[in-house]
Amino acid sequence: MADAYQIQSNGDTHAKPLLELYVKASGIDARRIGADLFCQEFWMELYALYEIGVARVEVKTVNVNSEAFKKNFLGAQPPIMIEEEKELTYTDNREIEGRIFHLAKEFNVPLFEKDPSAEKRIENLYRNFKLFLRAKVEFDKGKKEPSRVEDLPAQIKVHYNRVCEQLSNIDQLLSERKSRYLLGNSMTEYDCELMPRLHHIRIIGLSLLGFDIPHNFTHLWNYILTAYRTAAFIESCPADQDIIHHYKEQMNLFTNQRETLQSPTKTHTIPEKVLSDIRNKGLAPDVNVH
Amino acid sequence: MADAYQIQSNGDTHAKPLLELYVKASGIDARRIGADLFCQEFWMELYALYEIGVARVEVKTVNVNSEAFKKNFLGAQPPIMIEEEKELTYTDNREIEGRIFHLAKEFNVPLFEKDPSAEKRIENLYRNFKLFLRAKVEFDKGKKEPSRVEDLPAQIKVHYNRVCEQLSNIDQLLSERKSRYLLGNSMTEYDCELMPRLHHIRIIGLSLLGFDIPHNFTHLWNYILTAYRTAAFIESCPADQDIIHHYKEQMNLFTNQRETLQSPTKTHTIPEKVLSDIRNKGLAPDVNVH
Repeated sequence: MADAYQIQSNGDTHAKPLLELYVKASGIDARRIGADLFCQEFWMELYALYEIGVARVEVKTVNVNSEAFKKNFLGAQPPIMIEEEKELTYTDNREIEGRIFHLAKEFNVPLFEKDPSAEKRIENLYRNFKLFLRAKVEFDKGKKEPSRVEDLPAQIKVHYNRVCEQLSNIDQLLSERKSRYLLGNSMTEYDCELMPRLHHIRIIGLSLLGFDIPHNFTHLWNYILTAYRTAAFIESCPADQDIIHHYKEQMNLFTNQRETLQSPTKTHTIPEKVLSDIRNKGLAPDVNVH
Repeated sequence: MADAYQIQSNGDTHAKPLLELYVKASGIDARRIGADLFCQEFWMELYALYEIGVARVEVKTVNVNSEAFKKNFLGAQPPIMIEEEKELTYTDNREIEGRIFHLAKEFNVPLFEKDPSAEKRIENLYRNFKLFLRAKVEFDKGKKEPSRVEDLPAQIKVHYNRVCEQLSNIDQLLSERKSRYLLGNSMTEYDCELMPRLHHIRIIGLSLLGFDIPHNFTHLWNYILTAYRTAAFIESCPADQDIIHHYKEQMNLFTNQRETLQSPTKTHTIPEKVLSDIRNKGLAPDVNVH
Protein backbone atom coordinates (compact mmCIF):
# COMPACT_ATOMS: atom_id res chain seq x y z
CA MET A 1 0.00 0.00 0.00
CA ALA A 2 2.67 2.47 0.94
CA ASP A 3 6.16 3.00 -0.30
CA ALA A 4 8.31 3.32 2.75
CA TYR A 5 10.44 6.38 3.11
CA GLN A 6 12.44 5.78 6.20
CA ILE A 7 14.65 8.04 8.19
CA GLN A 8 17.49 5.99 9.64
CA SER A 9 17.33 5.87 13.37
CA ASN A 10 20.24 7.23 15.33
CA GLY A 11 21.58 5.17 18.21
CA ASP A 12 19.60 3.16 20.71
CA THR A 13 16.23 2.09 19.41
CA HIS A 14 14.70 0.39 22.40
CA ALA A 15 13.60 3.08 24.80
CA LYS A 16 12.44 5.59 22.21
CA PRO A 17 8.89 5.64 20.91
CA LEU A 18 8.50 4.82 17.24
CA LEU A 19 6.26 7.29 15.43
CA GLU A 20 5.12 6.50 11.92
CA LEU A 21 3.94 9.43 9.86
CA TYR A 22 1.81 8.82 6.77
CA VAL A 23 2.14 11.69 4.30
CA LYS A 24 0.27 12.34 1.08
CA ALA A 25 2.08 11.11 -2.03
CA SER A 26 2.63 13.24 -5.10
CA GLY A 27 -0.01 13.06 -7.82
CA ILE A 28 2.81 12.52 -10.33
CA ASP A 29 4.41 9.52 -8.66
CA ALA A 30 3.08 7.87 -5.50
CA ARG A 31 6.64 7.10 -4.38
CA ARG A 32 7.36 10.83 -4.15
CA ILE A 33 6.32 13.20 -1.38
CA GLY A 34 3.30 15.35 -2.17
CA ALA A 35 2.96 19.04 -1.37
CA ASP A 36 0.61 18.89 1.61
CA LEU A 37 1.63 21.64 4.03
CA PHE A 38 0.39 19.98 7.22
CA CYS A 39 2.31 16.81 6.33
CA GLN A 40 5.53 18.77 5.96
CA GLU A 41 4.89 20.73 9.14
CA PHE A 42 4.53 17.61 11.30
CA TRP A 43 7.39 15.89 9.51
CA MET A 44 9.66 18.81 10.42
CA GLU A 45 8.54 18.67 14.05
CA LEU A 46 9.09 14.91 14.21
CA TYR A 47 12.48 15.35 12.56
CA ALA A 48 13.43 17.78 15.33
CA LEU A 49 12.58 15.10 17.91
CA TYR A 50 14.43 12.45 15.94
CA GLU A 51 17.54 14.62 15.55
CA ILE A 52 18.10 14.92 19.25
CA GLY A 53 17.36 11.27 19.85
CA VAL A 54 13.96 11.58 21.53
CA ALA A 55 11.97 9.47 19.06
CA ARG A 56 12.34 7.10 16.17
CA VAL A 57 10.52 8.29 13.08
CA GLU A 58 9.38 6.55 9.93
CA VAL A 59 7.69 8.45 7.14
CA LYS A 60 5.53 6.69 4.56
CA THR A 61 3.98 8.21 1.47
CA VAL A 62 0.45 7.09 0.71
CA ASN A 63 -1.70 7.34 -2.37
CA VAL A 64 -4.96 8.61 -0.90
CA ASN A 65 -6.92 7.48 -3.94
CA SER A 66 -5.92 3.84 -3.65
CA GLU A 67 -8.53 1.38 -2.43
CA ALA A 68 -5.98 -0.11 -0.04
CA PHE A 69 -5.47 3.25 1.66
CA LYS A 70 -9.18 3.99 1.96
CA LYS A 71 -9.85 0.58 3.41
CA ASN A 72 -7.01 0.73 5.91
CA PHE A 73 -7.73 4.20 7.19
CA LEU A 74 -11.50 4.37 6.62
CA GLY A 75 -11.70 7.92 5.41
CA ALA A 76 -8.95 9.51 7.48
CA GLN A 77 -6.70 11.85 5.49
CA PRO A 78 -2.94 12.38 5.85
CA PRO A 79 -1.15 13.47 7.90
CA ILE A 80 -1.86 10.36 9.98
CA MET A 81 0.47 9.27 12.77
CA ILE A 82 0.67 5.78 14.24
CA GLU A 83 2.31 4.73 17.47
CA GLU A 84 2.18 0.96 17.29
CA GLU A 85 3.49 0.25 20.81
CA LYS A 86 0.55 2.15 22.26
CA GLU A 87 -1.85 0.88 19.61
CA LEU A 88 -2.72 4.49 18.84
CA THR A 89 -3.63 6.12 15.55
CA TYR A 90 -3.68 9.90 15.45
CA THR A 91 -5.84 11.00 12.53
CA ASP A 92 -6.52 14.52 13.66
CA ASN A 93 -4.01 17.38 13.50
CA ARG A 94 -4.93 18.24 17.07
CA GLU A 95 -4.06 14.74 18.25
CA ILE A 96 -0.82 14.59 16.26
CA GLU A 97 0.33 17.92 17.61
CA GLY A 98 -0.77 16.93 21.12
CA ARG A 99 1.45 13.82 21.03
CA ILE A 100 4.47 15.73 19.63
CA PHE A 101 3.86 18.48 22.19
CA HIS A 102 3.97 16.03 25.08
CA LEU A 103 7.14 14.37 23.84
CA ALA A 104 8.80 17.77 23.38
CA LYS A 105 7.75 18.80 26.87
CA GLU A 106 8.95 15.56 28.42
CA PHE A 107 12.44 16.04 26.95
CA ASN A 108 12.61 19.83 27.28
CA VAL A 109 12.71 20.47 23.55
CA PRO A 110 11.71 24.12 23.02
CA LEU A 111 9.65 23.30 19.95
CA PHE A 112 6.40 24.85 21.20
CA GLU A 113 7.48 28.11 22.77
CA LYS A 114 4.72 30.70 22.41
CA ASP A 115 5.22 34.10 20.81
CA PRO A 116 1.98 35.93 20.00
CA SER A 117 3.72 38.67 18.02
CA ALA A 118 5.43 36.17 15.69
CA GLU A 119 2.16 34.25 15.43
CA LYS A 120 0.31 37.41 14.42
CA ARG A 121 2.79 38.19 11.65
CA ILE A 122 2.62 34.80 9.98
CA GLU A 123 -1.05 33.83 10.34
CA ASN A 124 -2.51 35.60 7.32
CA LEU A 125 0.35 35.30 4.86
CA TYR A 126 -0.61 32.04 3.21
CA ARG A 127 -4.33 32.79 3.07
CA ASN A 128 -3.58 36.05 1.29
CA PHE A 129 -1.20 34.35 -1.07
CA LYS A 130 -3.93 31.92 -2.04
CA LEU A 131 -6.38 34.76 -2.69
CA PHE A 132 -3.76 36.44 -4.91
CA LEU A 133 -3.01 33.15 -6.67
CA ARG A 134 -6.64 32.38 -7.43
CA ALA A 135 -7.43 35.87 -8.66
CA LYS A 136 -4.35 36.17 -10.87
CA VAL A 137 -4.64 32.69 -12.36
CA GLU A 138 -8.25 33.48 -13.25
CA PHE A 139 -7.20 36.80 -14.81
CA ASP A 140 -4.36 35.19 -16.77
CA LYS A 141 -6.56 32.42 -18.21
CA GLY A 142 -5.83 31.93 -21.89
CA LYS A 143 -2.67 34.07 -21.84
CA LYS A 144 0.56 32.44 -22.92
CA GLU A 145 2.64 34.07 -20.19
CA PRO A 146 1.58 35.33 -16.75
CA SER A 147 0.77 39.05 -16.88
CA ARG A 148 3.06 41.55 -15.19
CA VAL A 149 2.09 42.92 -11.78
CA GLU A 150 2.06 46.48 -13.18
CA ASP A 151 -0.65 45.47 -15.64
CA LEU A 152 -3.02 43.99 -13.07
CA PRO A 153 -6.41 45.58 -12.39
CA ALA A 154 -6.84 47.18 -8.97
CA GLN A 155 -8.96 44.37 -7.48
CA ILE A 156 -6.17 41.85 -8.08
CA LYS A 157 -3.36 44.21 -7.22
CA VAL A 158 -4.86 44.62 -3.75
CA HIS A 159 -4.15 40.93 -3.09
CA TYR A 160 -0.62 41.33 -4.42
CA ASN A 161 -0.03 44.33 -2.17
CA ARG A 162 -1.24 42.45 0.88
CA VAL A 163 1.09 39.53 0.26
CA CYS A 164 4.04 41.96 -0.13
CA GLU A 165 3.03 43.84 2.99
CA GLN A 166 2.99 40.68 5.02
CA LEU A 167 6.28 39.46 3.64
CA SER A 168 7.68 42.85 4.57
CA ASN A 169 6.36 42.50 8.14
CA ILE A 170 8.12 39.18 8.51
CA ASP A 171 11.32 40.63 7.01
CA GLN A 172 11.07 43.41 9.60
CA LEU A 173 10.55 40.97 12.48
CA LEU A 174 13.58 38.94 11.42
CA SER A 175 15.73 42.05 11.11
CA GLU A 176 14.77 43.11 14.66
CA ARG A 177 15.40 39.71 16.15
CA LYS A 178 18.66 38.99 14.31
CA SER A 179 18.11 35.29 14.98
CA ARG A 180 18.52 32.27 12.78
CA TYR A 181 14.94 31.07 13.30
CA LEU A 182 11.83 33.08 14.11
CA LEU A 183 12.16 32.91 17.89
CA GLY A 184 15.87 32.34 18.36
CA ASN A 185 18.60 29.93 17.48
CA SER A 186 16.53 26.80 17.48
CA MET A 187 13.62 25.80 15.32
CA THR A 188 10.09 26.04 16.71
CA GLU A 189 6.65 25.11 15.43
CA TYR A 190 6.41 28.59 13.87
CA ASP A 191 9.30 27.76 11.56
CA CYS A 192 7.75 24.40 10.72
CA GLU A 193 4.68 26.35 9.67
CA LEU A 194 6.32 29.28 7.88
CA MET A 195 9.23 27.70 6.02
CA PRO A 196 7.17 25.33 3.84
CA ARG A 197 4.67 28.11 3.09
CA LEU A 198 7.39 30.54 2.02
CA HIS A 199 8.87 27.87 -0.21
CA HIS A 200 5.48 27.19 -1.84
CA ILE A 201 4.99 30.93 -2.38
CA ARG A 202 8.36 31.09 -4.04
CA ILE A 203 7.96 28.03 -6.29
CA ILE A 204 4.35 28.77 -7.29
CA GLY A 205 5.08 32.49 -7.63
CA LEU A 206 7.85 31.81 -10.12
CA SER A 207 6.12 29.07 -12.09
CA LEU A 208 2.50 30.26 -12.26
CA LEU A 209 2.40 33.94 -11.36
CA GLY A 210 5.52 35.68 -12.67
CA PHE A 211 6.01 36.74 -9.06
CA ASP A 212 9.08 36.53 -6.86
CA ILE A 213 9.52 37.42 -3.20
CA PRO A 214 10.90 40.99 -3.46
CA HIS A 215 14.69 40.88 -3.56
CA ASN A 216 15.11 43.74 -1.12
CA PHE A 217 13.69 41.65 1.76
CA THR A 218 17.20 40.55 2.67
CA HIS A 219 16.36 39.22 6.13
CA LEU A 220 13.49 37.20 4.77
CA TRP A 221 15.70 35.72 2.05
CA ASN A 222 18.31 34.92 4.64
CA TYR A 223 15.60 33.05 6.56
CA ILE A 224 14.68 31.12 3.41
CA LEU A 225 18.35 30.26 3.04
CA THR A 226 18.28 28.96 6.61
CA ALA A 227 15.40 26.68 5.61
CA TYR A 228 17.51 25.35 2.73
CA ARG A 229 20.22 24.50 5.26
CA THR A 230 17.94 22.94 7.85
CA ALA A 231 17.86 19.14 7.63
CA ALA A 232 14.25 18.96 8.88
CA PHE A 233 13.16 21.16 6.00
CA ILE A 234 15.32 19.63 3.27
CA GLU A 235 14.34 16.09 4.15
CA SER A 236 10.60 16.79 4.15
CA CYS A 237 10.51 19.10 1.13
CA PRO A 238 8.70 17.94 -2.02
CA ALA A 239 10.26 18.48 -5.46
CA ASP A 240 9.36 21.65 -7.39
CA GLN A 241 7.44 19.58 -9.92
CA ASP A 242 5.33 17.97 -7.22
CA ILE A 243 4.51 21.35 -5.69
CA ILE A 244 3.51 22.80 -9.07
CA HIS A 245 1.44 19.72 -9.91
CA HIS A 246 -0.39 19.97 -6.56
CA TYR A 247 -1.57 23.54 -7.23
CA LYS A 248 -2.37 22.95 -10.89
CA GLU A 249 -4.54 20.01 -9.93
CA GLN A 250 -6.48 22.08 -7.43
CA MET A 251 -7.01 24.97 -9.81
CA ASN A 252 -8.00 22.62 -12.57
CA LEU A 253 -5.20 23.95 -14.78
CA PHE A 254 -3.86 22.07 -17.76
CA THR A 255 -0.99 19.88 -16.58
CA ASN A 256 1.63 19.74 -19.28
CA GLN A 257 4.33 17.12 -19.45
CA ARG A 258 6.88 19.60 -18.17
CA GLU A 259 6.21 18.58 -14.59
CA THR A 260 5.13 15.00 -14.99
CA LEU A 261 8.03 13.78 -17.16
CA GLN A 262 10.87 15.89 -15.78
CA SER A 263 13.26 14.40 -13.28
CA PRO A 264 12.30 15.87 -9.93
CA THR A 265 14.44 18.83 -8.86
CA LYS A 266 14.41 21.00 -5.76
CA THR A 267 15.11 24.73 -5.90
CA HIS A 268 17.10 25.23 -2.75
CA THR A 269 19.24 28.17 -3.93
CA ILE A 270 18.46 31.86 -3.81
CA PRO A 271 19.18 34.62 -6.39
CA GLU A 272 22.88 35.67 -6.70
CA LYS A 273 22.13 39.33 -6.09
CA VAL A 274 20.24 38.53 -2.85
CA LEU A 275 23.05 36.25 -1.72
CA SER A 276 25.55 39.06 -2.14
CA ASP A 277 23.30 41.48 -0.19
CA ILE A 278 23.13 38.94 2.61
CA ARG A 279 26.93 38.74 2.65
CA ASN A 280 27.33 42.51 2.53
CA LYS A 281 25.03 42.92 5.51
CA GLY A 282 27.08 40.40 7.43
CA LEU A 283 24.15 38.02 7.84
CA ALA A 284 24.80 34.29 7.60
CA PRO A 285 28.61 34.57 7.73
CA ASP A 286 28.96 31.08 6.31
CA VAL A 287 27.57 32.13 2.94
CA ASN A 288 29.99 31.99 0.05
CA VAL A 289 28.96 33.77 -3.10
CA HIS A 290 29.47 31.45 -6.06
CA MET B 1 -20.85 25.65 -5.13
CA ALA B 2 -22.45 24.95 -1.81
CA ASP B 3 -25.99 24.44 -0.76
CA ALA B 4 -26.56 26.63 2.22
CA TYR B 5 -27.72 25.01 5.40
CA GLN B 6 -28.37 27.81 7.76
CA ILE B 7 -29.10 27.88 11.42
CA GLN B 8 -31.37 30.78 12.16
CA SER B 9 -29.67 33.37 14.28
CA ASN B 10 -31.23 34.18 17.62
CA GLY B 11 -31.55 37.81 18.59
CA ASP B 12 -29.07 40.59 18.00
CA THR B 13 -26.79 39.88 15.06
CA HIS B 14 -24.47 42.85 15.12
CA ALA B 15 -22.03 42.33 17.94
CA LYS B 16 -21.65 38.59 17.54
CA PRO B 17 -19.03 37.05 15.30
CA LEU B 18 -20.36 35.14 12.31
CA LEU B 19 -18.72 31.75 11.90
CA GLU B 20 -19.33 29.80 8.71
CA LEU B 21 -18.64 26.09 8.88
CA TYR B 22 -18.16 24.11 5.67
CA VAL B 23 -18.98 20.45 6.18
CA LYS B 24 -18.56 17.51 3.85
CA ALA B 25 -21.68 16.66 1.85
CA SER B 26 -23.11 13.16 1.60
CA GLY B 27 -21.91 11.03 -1.30
CA ILE B 28 -25.56 10.25 -2.05
CA ASP B 29 -26.80 13.82 -2.35
CA ALA B 30 -24.58 16.89 -2.03
CA ARG B 31 -27.41 18.78 -0.35
CA ARG B 32 -27.33 16.36 2.56
CA ILE B 33 -24.81 16.30 5.41
CA GLY B 34 -22.10 13.67 5.09
CA ALA B 35 -20.84 11.48 7.90
CA ASP B 36 -17.51 13.16 8.67
CA LEU B 37 -16.93 12.94 12.41
CA PHE B 38 -14.78 16.05 12.75
CA CYS B 39 -17.40 18.10 10.91
CA GLN B 40 -20.09 16.99 13.32
CA GLU B 41 -17.84 17.55 16.34
CA PHE B 42 -17.16 21.21 15.44
CA TRP B 43 -20.73 21.76 14.40
CA MET B 44 -21.89 20.64 17.85
CA GLU B 45 -19.39 22.95 19.54
CA LEU B 46 -20.45 25.88 17.38
CA TYR B 47 -24.08 25.06 18.07
CA ALA B 48 -23.36 25.29 21.79
CA LEU B 49 -21.96 28.81 21.25
CA TYR B 50 -24.90 29.75 19.05
CA GLU B 51 -27.46 28.45 21.55
CA ILE B 52 -26.34 30.80 24.29
CA GLY B 53 -26.05 33.71 21.90
CA VAL B 54 -22.26 34.02 21.72
CA ALA B 55 -21.89 33.56 17.97
CA ARG B 56 -23.85 33.45 14.77
CA VAL B 57 -23.34 30.20 12.88
CA GLU B 58 -23.94 29.18 9.30
CA VAL B 59 -23.29 25.66 8.12
CA LYS B 60 -22.75 24.84 4.45
CA THR B 61 -22.41 21.42 2.90
CA VAL B 62 -19.77 21.11 0.19
CA ASN B 63 -19.12 18.51 -2.44
CA VAL B 64 -15.38 18.01 -2.05
CA ASN B 65 -15.09 16.46 -5.51
CA SER B 66 -16.47 19.49 -7.33
CA GLU B 67 -14.06 21.66 -9.31
CA ALA B 68 -15.57 24.77 -7.74
CA PHE B 69 -14.75 23.53 -4.27
CA LYS B 70 -11.19 22.54 -5.14
CA LYS B 71 -10.56 25.88 -6.77
CA ASN B 72 -12.02 27.91 -3.94
CA PHE B 73 -10.25 26.10 -1.14
CA LEU B 74 -7.12 24.95 -2.97
CA GLY B 75 -6.80 21.53 -1.44
CA ALA B 76 -8.12 22.22 2.05
CA GLN B 77 -10.59 19.61 3.30
CA PRO B 78 -13.69 20.10 5.47
CA PRO B 79 -14.22 20.96 8.21
CA ILE B 80 -13.26 24.49 7.14
CA MET B 81 -14.35 27.53 9.13
CA ILE B 82 -14.50 31.08 7.79
CA GLU B 83 -14.77 34.28 9.78
CA GLU B 84 -15.36 36.88 7.11
CA GLU B 85 -15.15 39.95 9.37
CA LYS B 86 -11.61 39.02 10.32
CA GLU B 87 -10.81 37.78 6.82
CA LEU B 88 -9.75 34.49 8.35
CA THR B 89 -10.05 30.96 7.03
CA TYR B 90 -9.42 28.14 9.45
CA THR B 91 -8.54 25.02 7.48
CA ASP B 92 -6.84 23.09 10.23
CA ASN B 93 -8.65 21.32 13.09
CA ARG B 94 -6.17 22.93 15.48
CA GLU B 95 -7.07 26.39 14.24
CA ILE B 96 -10.82 25.75 14.27
CA GLU B 97 -10.70 24.42 17.80
CA GLY B 98 -8.40 27.29 18.85
CA ARG B 99 -10.97 29.85 17.68
CA ILE B 100 -13.91 28.08 19.33
CA PHE B 101 -11.81 27.66 22.49
CA HIS B 102 -11.12 31.39 22.70
CA LEU B 103 -14.75 32.31 22.16
CA ALA B 104 -15.84 29.82 24.82
CA LYS B 105 -13.25 31.21 27.23
CA GLU B 106 -14.23 34.81 26.55
CA PHE B 107 -17.85 34.10 27.41
CA ASN B 108 -17.22 31.59 30.21
CA VAL B 109 -18.79 28.67 28.36
CA PRO B 110 -17.52 25.47 30.05
CA LEU B 111 -17.09 23.67 26.72
CA PHE B 112 -13.42 22.79 27.15
CA GLU B 113 -13.16 21.65 30.76
CA LYS B 114 -10.43 19.05 31.07
CA ASP B 115 -10.97 15.61 32.56
CA PRO B 116 -8.12 13.16 31.95
CA SER B 117 -10.06 10.16 33.26
CA ALA B 118 -12.98 10.73 30.87
CA GLU B 119 -10.49 11.39 28.06
CA LYS B 120 -8.74 8.10 28.76
CA ARG B 121 -11.99 6.13 28.59
CA ILE B 122 -13.11 7.45 25.24
CA GLU B 123 -9.85 7.77 23.28
CA ASN B 124 -9.50 4.22 21.99
CA LEU B 125 -13.14 3.31 21.46
CA TYR B 126 -13.54 4.43 17.87
CA ARG B 127 -10.14 3.15 16.74
CA ASN B 128 -11.00 -0.28 18.12
CA PHE B 129 -14.41 -0.20 16.53
CA LYS B 130 -12.79 0.45 13.14
CA LEU B 131 -10.41 -2.48 13.62
CA PHE B 132 -13.39 -4.70 14.46
CA LEU B 133 -15.35 -3.35 11.49
CA ARG B 134 -12.57 -3.92 8.99
CA ALA B 135 -11.79 -7.41 10.22
CA LYS B 136 -15.41 -8.57 10.35
CA VAL B 137 -16.38 -7.08 6.97
CA GLU B 138 -13.38 -8.88 5.45
CA PHE B 139 -14.43 -12.14 7.14
CA ASP B 140 -18.06 -11.77 6.04
CA LYS B 141 -17.18 -11.11 2.39
CA GLY B 142 -19.47 -13.06 0.07
CA LYS B 143 -21.86 -14.02 2.87
CA LYS B 144 -25.50 -13.04 2.49
CA GLU B 145 -25.90 -12.04 6.12
CA PRO B 146 -23.32 -10.83 8.63
CA SER B 147 -22.01 -13.77 10.69
CA ARG B 148 -22.92 -14.05 14.34
CA VAL B 149 -20.40 -12.97 16.96
CA GLU B 150 -20.36 -16.48 18.45
CA ASP B 151 -19.13 -17.86 15.13
CA LEU B 152 -16.20 -15.47 14.75
CA PRO B 153 -12.63 -16.79 14.80
CA ALA B 154 -10.52 -15.75 17.80
CA GLN B 155 -8.48 -13.07 15.96
CA ILE B 156 -11.67 -11.17 15.10
CA LYS B 157 -13.40 -11.86 18.38
CA VAL B 158 -10.53 -10.10 20.16
CA HIS B 159 -11.52 -6.85 18.42
CA TYR B 160 -15.15 -7.40 19.34
CA ASN B 161 -14.22 -7.99 22.96
CA ARG B 162 -12.18 -4.81 23.11
CA VAL B 163 -15.02 -2.71 21.76
CA CYS B 164 -17.39 -4.19 24.34
CA GLU B 165 -14.88 -3.70 27.11
CA GLN B 166 -14.52 -0.03 26.26
CA LEU B 167 -18.24 0.50 25.94
CA SER B 168 -18.54 -1.12 29.38
CA ASN B 169 -15.91 1.29 30.80
CA ILE B 170 -17.90 4.26 29.56
CA ASP B 171 -21.12 2.78 30.93
CA GLN B 172 -19.34 2.40 34.28
CA LEU B 173 -18.08 6.01 34.23
CA LEU B 174 -21.56 7.30 33.47
CA SER B 175 -23.09 5.22 36.25
CA GLU B 176 -20.57 6.63 38.74
CA ARG B 177 -21.09 10.21 37.70
CA LYS B 178 -24.88 10.09 37.43
CA SER B 179 -24.73 13.13 35.16
CA ARG B 180 -26.52 13.94 31.95
CA TYR B 181 -23.31 14.54 29.98
CA LEU B 182 -19.86 13.06 30.53
CA LEU B 183 -18.59 15.76 32.89
CA GLY B 184 -21.80 17.14 34.35
CA ASN B 185 -25.02 18.78 33.34
CA SER B 186 -23.71 20.70 30.39
CA MET B 187 -22.18 19.46 27.17
CA THR B 188 -18.40 19.60 26.72
CA GLU B 189 -16.03 18.83 23.86
CA TYR B 190 -15.88 15.22 25.10
CA ASP B 191 -19.59 14.81 24.35
CA CYS B 192 -19.12 16.42 20.93
CA GLU B 193 -16.49 13.76 20.30
CA LEU B 194 -18.22 10.74 21.83
CA MET B 195 -21.87 11.18 20.85
CA PRO B 196 -21.34 11.09 17.06
CA ARG B 197 -18.96 8.15 17.39
CA LEU B 198 -21.42 6.14 19.49
CA HIS B 199 -24.13 6.86 16.94
CA HIS B 200 -21.91 5.68 14.06
CA ILE B 201 -21.05 2.53 16.02
CA ARG B 202 -24.74 1.89 16.51
CA ILE B 203 -25.84 2.54 12.91
CA ILE B 204 -22.91 0.71 11.28
CA GLY B 205 -23.06 -2.08 13.84
CA LEU B 206 -26.70 -2.76 13.01
CA SER B 207 -26.45 -2.38 9.25
CA LEU B 208 -23.10 -3.99 8.44
CA LEU B 209 -21.99 -6.09 11.39
CA GLY B 210 -25.03 -7.67 13.00
CA PHE B 211 -23.79 -5.97 16.17
CA ASP B 212 -25.63 -3.82 18.66
CA ILE B 213 -24.37 -1.97 21.70
CA PRO B 214 -25.08 -4.50 24.50
CA HIS B 215 -28.52 -3.82 25.96
CA ASN B 216 -27.39 -4.21 29.55
CA PHE B 217 -25.27 -1.03 29.36
CA THR B 218 -28.20 1.00 30.66
CA HIS B 219 -26.23 4.12 31.56
CA LEU B 220 -24.57 4.19 28.17
CA TRP B 221 -27.95 3.84 26.44
CA ASN B 222 -29.32 6.59 28.60
CA TYR B 223 -26.42 8.74 27.41
CA ILE B 224 -27.25 7.91 23.77
CA LEU B 225 -30.82 8.93 24.51
CA THR B 226 -29.46 12.22 25.84
CA ALA B 227 -27.70 12.72 22.49
CA TYR B 228 -31.02 12.13 20.70
CA ARG B 229 -32.51 14.90 22.84
CA THR B 230 -29.66 17.38 22.45
CA ALA B 231 -30.32 19.98 19.75
CA ALA B 232 -26.59 20.32 18.91
CA PHE B 233 -26.48 16.60 18.14
CA ILE B 234 -29.81 16.28 16.33
CA GLU B 235 -29.15 19.28 14.11
CA SER B 236 -25.69 18.10 13.01
CA CYS B 237 -26.51 14.41 12.64
CA PRO B 238 -26.43 12.83 9.16
CA ALA B 239 -29.16 10.43 8.06
CA ASP B 240 -28.63 6.70 8.59
CA GLN B 241 -28.34 6.19 4.84
CA ASP B 242 -25.59 8.78 4.56
CA ILE B 243 -23.64 7.19 7.40
CA ILE B 244 -23.92 3.73 5.86
CA HIS B 245 -22.94 5.06 2.42
CA HIS B 246 -19.87 6.77 3.89
CA TYR B 247 -18.50 3.54 5.37
CA LYS B 248 -19.41 1.41 2.37
CA GLU B 249 -17.55 3.79 0.10
CA GLN B 250 -14.44 3.60 2.20
CA MET B 251 -14.48 -0.15 2.46
CA ASN B 252 -15.18 -0.45 -1.24
CA LEU B 253 -18.37 -2.39 -0.56
CA PHE B 254 -21.12 -2.77 -3.08
CA THR B 255 -23.55 0.11 -2.62
CA ASN B 256 -27.02 -1.10 -3.28
CA GLN B 257 -29.97 1.10 -4.00
CA ARG B 258 -31.28 0.57 -0.50
CA GLU B 259 -29.36 3.60 0.77
CA THR B 260 -29.19 5.78 -2.31
CA LEU B 261 -32.89 5.70 -3.24
CA GLN B 262 -34.47 5.57 0.20
CA SER B 263 -35.82 8.72 1.76
CA PRO B 264 -33.31 9.72 4.40
CA THR B 265 -34.24 8.65 7.93
CA LYS B 266 -32.57 9.12 11.28
CA THR B 267 -32.61 6.45 13.95
CA HIS B 268 -32.97 8.52 17.08
CA THR B 269 -34.84 5.99 19.17
CA ILE B 270 -33.50 3.24 21.39
CA PRO B 271 -34.75 -0.34 21.92
CA GLU B 272 -37.98 -0.65 23.98
CA LYS B 273 -36.44 -3.04 26.47
CA VAL B 274 -33.56 -0.67 27.17
CA LEU B 275 -35.97 2.24 27.53
CA SER B 276 -37.91 0.35 30.17
CA ASP B 277 -34.67 -0.52 32.05
CA ILE B 278 -33.78 3.17 32.04
CA ARG B 279 -37.17 4.01 33.51
CA ASN B 280 -36.94 1.24 36.11
CA LYS B 281 -33.58 2.52 37.28
CA GLY B 282 -35.01 6.00 37.63
CA LEU B 283 -32.63 7.48 35.08
CA ALA B 284 -33.94 10.14 32.71
CA PRO B 285 -37.22 10.71 34.58
CA ASP B 286 -38.73 12.36 31.52
CA VAL B 287 -38.73 9.10 29.57
CA ASN B 288 -42.14 7.70 28.72
CA VAL B 289 -42.31 4.14 27.55
CA HIS B 290 -44.38 3.95 24.36
